[in-house]
Parts: sequence; structure tokens; C-alpha cells
Amino acid sequence: MSLDTPNASPDPQTGRRAARSGGRAARHAARAAKLSDDMRPIRPGMSGGTYKPMSETDVAKIHEAALTALETIGLADAPPSGVEIMVGAGALLGDDGRLRFPRALVEDMLALACKDVTLRGRHPRHDLDLSGTRVHYGTAGAAVNMVDVMGNDYRDSTLQDLHDAARITDVLDNIHFLQRPMVARDITDNLEMDLNTIYACAAGTTKHIGTSFSDPSHMPDCLEMLYMIAGGEDVFRARPFMSNSNCFVVPPMKFATESCETMEMCIRGGMPVLLLSAGMSGATAPSTTAGAIVQSVAECLAGVVYVNAMAPGHPAIFGTWPFGLDLRTGAMTVGSGEQALLTAGCAQMHAFYGLPGGAAGGASDSKMPDMQAGWEQMCSNVMAGLSGLNMVYEAAGMHASLLGFCHESLILGDDLIGQALRCVRGIEVDDETMALDQMAQVCLGTADAPAPGHYLGTDRTLSHMERDCVYPALGNRMSPKEWAENDRPNLVQNAIARKEAILATRSEARFDAGLDAQLRARFNIHLPA
Amino acid sequence: MSLDTPNASPDPQTGRRAARSGGRAARHAARAAKLSDDMRPIRPGMSGGTYKPMSETDVAKIHEAALTALETIGLADAPPSGVEIMVGAGALLGDDGRLRFPRALVEDMLALACKDVTLRGRHPRHDLDLSGTRVHYGTAGAAVNMVDVMGNDYRDSTLQDLHDAARITDVLDNIHFLQRPMVARDITDNLEMDLNTIYACAAGTTKHIGTSFSDPSHMPDCLEMLYMIAGGEDVFRARPFMSNSNCFVVPPMKFATESCETMEMCIRGGMPVLLLSAGMSGATAPSTTAGAIVQSVAECLAGVVYVNAMAPGHPAIFGTWPFGLDLRTGAMTVGSGEQALLTAGCAQMHAFYGLPGGAAGGASDSKMPDMQAGWEQMCSNVMAGLSGLNMVYEAAGMHASLLGFCHESLILGDDLIGQALRCVRGIEVDDETMALDQMAQVCLGTADAPAPGHYLGTDRTLSHMERDCVYPALGNRMSPKEWAENDRPNLVQNAIARKEAILATRSEARFDAGLDAQLRARFNIHLPA
Repeated sequence: MSLDTPNASPDPQTGRRAARSGGRAARHAARAAKLSDDMRPIRPGMSGGTYKPMSETDVAKIHEAALTALETIGLADAPPSGVEIMVGAGALLGDDGRLRFPRALVEDMLALACKDVTLRGRHPRHDLDLSGTRVHYGTAGAAVNMVDVMGNDYRDSTLQDLHDAARITDVLDNIHFLQRPMVARDITDNLEMDLNTIYACAAGTTKHIGTSFSDPSHMPDCLEMLYMIAGGEDVFRARPFMSNSNCFVVPPMKFATESCETMEMCIRGGMPVLLLSAGMSGATAPSTTAGAIVQSVAECLAGVVYVNAMAPGHPAIFGTWPFGLDLRTGAMTVGSGEQALLTAGCAQMHAFYGLPGGAAGGASDSKMPDMQAGWEQMCSNVMAGLSGLNMVYEAAGMHASLLGFCHESLILGDDLIGQALRCVRGIEVDDETMALDQMAQVCLGTADAPAPGHYLGTDRTLSHMERDCVYPALGNRMSPKEWAENDRPNLVQNAIARKEAILATRSEARFDAGLDAQLRARFNIHLPA
Repeated sequence: MSLDTPNASPDPQTGRRAARSGGRAARHAARAAKLSDDMRPIRPGMSGGTYKPMSETDVAKIHEAALTALETIGLADAPPSGVEIMVGAGALLGDDGRLRFPRALVEDMLALACKDVTLRGRHPRHDLDLSGTRVHYGTAGAAVNMVDVMGNDYRDSTLQDLHDAARITDVLDNIHFLQRPMVARDITDNLEMDLNTIYACAAGTTKHIGTSFSDPSHMPDCLEMLYMIAGGEDVFRARPFMSNSNCFVVPPMKFATESCETMEMCIRGGMPVLLLSAGMSGATAPSTTAGAIVQSVAECLAGVVYVNAMAPGHPAIFGTWPFGLDLRTGAMTVGSGEQALLTAGCAQMHAFYGLPGGAAGGASDSKMPDMQAGWEQMCSNVMAGLSGLNMVYEAAGMHASLLGFCHESLILGDDLIGQALRCVRGIEVDDETMALDQMAQVCLGTADAPAPGHYLGTDRTLSHMERDCVYPALGNRMSPKEWAENDRPNLVQNAIARKEAILATRSEARFDAGLDAQLRARFNIHLPA
């Protein structure tokens, strides 16, 4: 069953094998007409939910267990302001300093919680609607290294690396948002790091940005910068293009005191918050998948109480981010099947609550963008998408169990996530797609025409080509013969070339000269002008 | 959020970072006790079905459309023997030479069809129970090239390559069967090729084998060889260790005349058959996912009628194998999201009929075992597993859109499929796994002990370590520091080394000397003794 067609000559432009005669010119003409956004085969915010790792009974059990944990174990270490807010709403402060949450309180606050969060881009075309099981993919993390692909090495990550990641994200269709994926280790002052992180991200992309702040005392300056970039506080509040990724808990079942203070200031400042619970299954969370989900759900429910007791309906993302641990070594692992299940199980809980939710998917344990990276990134990314996770964080570029970020992998991730999104879109079943009429025509012919015996070049096939099929940008589909004739294209080398091409162009996201001068006059910006 | 633990020293044997103090010795002790097969975290035949790409209504629509296609379009080109068999059962032969199938006939034959096929290994420990949504992964295909990983090249595949693939498959836990993945191109005589294919496969593995035969006239010799290997015809019939992968249709909607004759001889000879319909979506099948599924279901239902009209209840696998086509070029593509959906949608139809089913998953368009290969292989493999596909064919080692087979990729596929199987196993939710008692103990302590504040080293975590977690053999989880200290292990280089180690050992599957001498006396065996 050789499937090659050796007689077809390769296209001189693409090096691709030509199609069977007849339909090719028509296909080229069809491709020349650029598709409008709503005709593209994949888009941000396609709805998942066809994959349900747990039964409805199991989901209800997890919910019940989380409520029990909140009622009987509760959380320690809330800041005084948080204690006041939550006790005011009905939480109970124990002699052991732990806040416990009666079930009715949790249910009341769930009723108040914002269900239809839209995360804003600096440009409205990048707004993200987090309702239902709509799926979005983006970066995230706090990697401390950059992957040096050409040198087969790791080095410290810098502010320029972060800015470059923002610029690359800006032009990749399937990376829908930029959460700060790495730390600018070349900036030693923490306030300057926070400010320059905002600058480097926002000057690189008009997509929605997420970041964290290293100290509550930084918030006035950081908000001032955000308001300047937006063109005024009211403008920012109307369309907050940045959300606060906030590790408000230290699992198991403790509030992160200072992060909670930061969160309160972000809420007052008009920023959506990501309520991020990042337990490690086997270390800071139970080793079992179900147990880790119970604990992270309980912690995020405490966050829902906190936010809505303070500011009812404030936009918040239910950020259950349990991670895996390699129990042989005690080292973190994020590329496993267990990780993919943790993430997909969390997505199912978000859907149960009807709350916008996020979790980590798509990160790899591999050090380089190799086959392992490919299988690990796809496994959790596609399962997250199929389970309907609203925000898939860490979805591209993340290596070495979150310790390294890789620009080339980010670029390849665009292809990988495009494929995952095609799977999320799923199978449309109707009279047109079932194609019985076409089948009859192709097999039996009509009164006017004999049976062609194949579907090539039919109108239905041509219209399907661009509207329903996803084509990889760098993924290679050549036959071995074409591949050899085209100097054996190398995936990683092509990603390097694409990175260089992206970074050589002038970014559409950069600030206009007046704003840039204002920002540089007010703050110490480390990126060259 | 640096997650490295720089103070921990690497294990001198493994180079892995040591765990936090305390639990490590206990973990090592726990690992020393080898797990029995039923305690392993993953096994052949775990049940999927948590992913359902189509609604129940859509599944019913596909079924109805397939019945309509069989009733109104029917299939051409049945051999005279097949016409006699199917007309005898109630099919209608039209003036146009097409056999059409009344709905009641299809439903009657579905009722007769064997629902609980067990495919036999030469060793019973490799038997495959295809009931329900039990999932098995294996090789398949008819690649004409071998991937030369070290030379970054392709070359013709040989009988020795096939035998080596069998030997490698034999020792990989997560490759559950060997269907002939490549053609022995160094054997020019087709009968000798068929015979040597049987020999090379069966002498390399005691797992279940699938193969095809290039001409019906080869069947007497091939059956003779199979009976000799089994130790007698009756022994083979009792435990047929080989099934016939039979492309009994030429889509769209035509029987493959000679293959049907072969199929009849296989059925009479006691071999299970794989009813394989391999349409290309956009060429020999409708371009839409739903349409391609309708057609392949219709074709396989015709096969069910054929088999059961001839031999009621004969073991047959519902082999809907629709493939994708890159509509820009007319070239085959098997690594896409569309392909993964085709395969998962087919699995859902198999479950609807309650029939053992198979489809292609895990093949890649990439030429080398690179990141693209990883993401493509995982995408369709994990979706096939989650959808509960009984037999995932082409699941490992397959490159260049089925044109090339790669031993190193087969070895890496064992890790990849192990991860997919972990996902198939899913999330267990019960009082033990939800771990509320542990959470209370870890957070609150007990009367006798203070709260440890973490889950490391608890009994629950230790028992979880080996029974619930899958560890990759070659996938690397080191920190960048460990990785650098260990000479930057390279995934593909390690796969090459493993291949060489496997092929350097004496195979447990090889024939005993007496049988081997008999086979070599009776047939021209091209493999060196």
C-alpha cells in the first residue's frame, strides 16, 4: 500500500507534491481568497467539554469533600484585613487561627461570583470570553532559565527574553494571551523587576497579559504604570488589559499572607484576579489525583469567598493548578499523564461551578524541544481543551518542569495548539457533513454525468479545505522524496528562523513615542528604547 | 517560584536529584518490591470511553446514514463467491452489479456478530480481550521505508527490519500487538514475502500478530506455515495467534475482489479478520469528518454482513480506518487533529454497535522522531484511548504519513503510549483517593503528633508511588542542573542505545531449533538462522 504518488511533480514554490490533475488550479484560486476571522477553522474560545474524566457522581463527591475540608479544616494565615472581610461575611475564626467556612457561606458566595468574565486585550480583537467551556491557550510561569536551543544549554532568563516572548506571542494566532512566563533575572531590584515586567509584556503584545507582583508595596507604582499605558485609570478600569496571577494560598490550606494583601489592592485597583492554588501532588497536596483536586478546589473556593465578600462579582478566575511530583525523586514533574488528568479534572470542576477557570497544561519536563516535549505538551494541552478548560496556562514554551522557557518551542507550540484546537472544535454532524448525496453522486453518478469514483475537486471538498482544515506552519507533511529534495527541513532550525524573522520586524504592539517617553521619564525602564 | 532544590545531591547511580530528607530510604525500599502484573499502574485493555466526540443523537444519525448508504448505494465488485453468500443472506444484486443491503439484513447480521473477540498471543499472557471499551496499542501499516535516524535519511525497508521491529515490540510493555508495520522490500517474490513476513514476525514476538496476504493463492502455504508454528491446525484454530488485516473494500463503496477471496480463505482457515476500510477523506471518502465516518461505517457494516452470512459469529474487527488528506496538495496526512477526530469518532461508533473495533492512531507526518512526531503521535493516541478504541493500529513508529517506519520511534512510543494509557486509566474518586482524613492530619495534626504540613513520606504517598504513577523509561525529568551534570542526555541517542541493547539479547520469542529446522526445510526463509 504505497501511498506516494511518484509521478506528481513538486510545486516550485512550496516544494510540495502536486495534487492529482484537475482540482489543483481551483484549489489555488480558493486559497487566494483570504478567509475572514469568523470563517477560520479554529479561533480562540471554541467550546470543549466532550471529554469528561469523572462521572457526575464523582464531581459531586469532590464538591462535597471540598466543602467538608473548608468547614472542618479551614485555612490558616489570612492577613488581618482578610480575616475581617471573611469573618464579616460569616467565616469562623478558630482558636487555632484558622478560618473555617460554613457550607452556606460558600454557596452564597458562589451565587455572587462573576460567571461571565471577559479578559480584555489592549486591542479589543484579543478579548477573551471565558463563559461556558470556551477554551483559550497562553503562556504562564516563572521560569528562571532560557533554553538555548542552538547551544544545547540553559542560561538565566532576562527582561529582553521576556519582551521577545511577548512579541512572538503577539503574532501567533493560537497563543491567545501572555501570562508572564519567565523572570527577568537581570533586574535585581524587585520593584523595578515588577515594573519592567509590565513594560516588557505590554510593549510586546496587545493580547491580554497576566503577571504577579512580588510585594504589596509595589502596587501603587504598578497601578500607576498600568493606568498610564491604558490612557487613564478610568480607561484601565473599563478594559483592564492585565490580570493579577495571584498565588493567594500556600498549600495545604494556608493563605499566603502578603499575596492576599496584593490581591486586595489589585481588586481595589480594578484588575481581574487569577486565584491560583499550585499544590504539588505528593508534597503540598495529596498524592492522589482526586485528593489533589479536592484540596485545590477547596482552596479556590476559599478564594471565591474572599473576593466576593470584599467585592461581590469582581472578575476572578478559579485557578486550580495542582502539579505532579515524581515520587521516586521528589522532583516536580509537569509533563506526565497524571498531570493531564489533574488539569482535565479541574476543568470539569470549573464547569460544575459555572465559573471561569484556569489550570496548567502543555508544560514539558524535557529540556529541549524534542519528541518528549511534543508528546508531553500535546497530551495535557489537548486533554485540557477537550475538557473545556477556559484558560490553559503554561500551554507553550515551557520546559524542564517549569524551570526553562524556550522561544522556539513557543513558536512550535502555535502549530501544536492549533491542532489541539481543531480537536476541541470536534465533529459536526448534519446532512451536509454526512454527505450522503455526495456519496451517491460519486458512486452512482447522475443522469448527466458518470460516477467519478472519488471526491477530489468537488465543491464540497474545496470549501472544506480552508474552513475546516488546520494546516501547520512548520509541521512538515512532505513525502520522504520531497523532503530529501528540499534539503531535509529541520523543525527546530525552521523555528529559529521564524523567531528571527518575527523579532526583525517592527512590533505593532509597541507604545507610541509620546507614551513611551512618559513611561521612561517616570520609571527606570531597562529595555533599550 | 524556583522549583529546583540546589542543595539536594544527585543520586550517584541515577544522577537524579535526591528527595527531601526522611522519605527517601522508605521510597527506595518500597520500590525494591517488584509489583505483580495486576498491581502495575497501567496494563493492556484498560477501559476508555470518557471522551465522546459526538452526542448520542449524532451517533444515531451516523448509523442511520450508513444504513441508508448500504440500502441505496450499496457496494460494487464483490467476488462471485461473495455475491452468492450475501445474496443468500438477503442482499440484493442490482442491474448495475452493486450489492444493496436492506436494513433488516444489516441488523440481523449485527445480532449474529461476535461481540467478545479475544485475540490470542503465542503466549497466553499476551491475549487481548477486545470487549467493551478496552484499549490496546500496537503497530501496523505497510511502510516501504525505514527511517535512518543517525543518517537523517530514508532507505528501503527489509525483512530484517521487520524482524527487528517484532523483537523490539516483544519487550515493550505498552506495545500490545504487532501488526506488520512495513514491507520486506528485499524479497521480490510475493509468496516468499508473505511467508517470510509470517516467519519474521512470529520468530520475533509471542504477542498477537496481524498481517495481510498479497494474493488468495498464497493462503494454502501461509496457513500451512501458521499451523506448523502453532504445532498443528487444531492448535492454531483453538488459539489463532495471527489475524488477517484485510483491505476488503476499495473506498468508496466497492469490494476489493481478490482481498475478499483471501478473507474467505482466512475465515475457513480459522483466522480472525480485521475488516479494514481505509478511505482517504477528500479523495476516496467524503472530505468532512462525519462523511468519512459514515462511509467507513457503511463499508464495515457490509463486511459484517459478509463475514456473518458466511460464518456466523466468526471473530472480526470493525476496522474503520479513515485517513486524512492535505487538501492543499492531495497528499496523505495522518498526524493532524482531523485524523485524531476521525479515529475517535470511529471508536464511538464501535461502542454503539458493541463490536470490537480498530482504527489508526499515533502515526506521524514527520520524517524523524522530533517534536512534531511527539505531538502528532500523542494527539491521536491519547484521543483514541480516551474514546475507548479497542485496537489502536499504527500507534508507534510510523512516520512520513505511513511511508516510513522507525525503530527508535517505536521505542520512544512505549513511553508515549504508557502516558496515554495512564490517561485512559483516569481518575479514581473514592474516600481513600479524596484523602480528606490525610488532609486533616497533615494540616491539623493529631493528638499524638503535630501537623507535618506536607504529604511527603506518608504511607498513602508511598503506596501511590508505584501503583498509580507511570514513569517514562527514556523521557527525562531531570532539572537543567542535573541534566548538564549528566552530559545532557539526548532522547534519540538513548533510543538508539536501547534498540541496540534489545537486539543484542537473545529473543525469548524465537522458535525452538526443531521447529525452525522444519520451517526452513519446507520454506525458503530469508532470515539467517
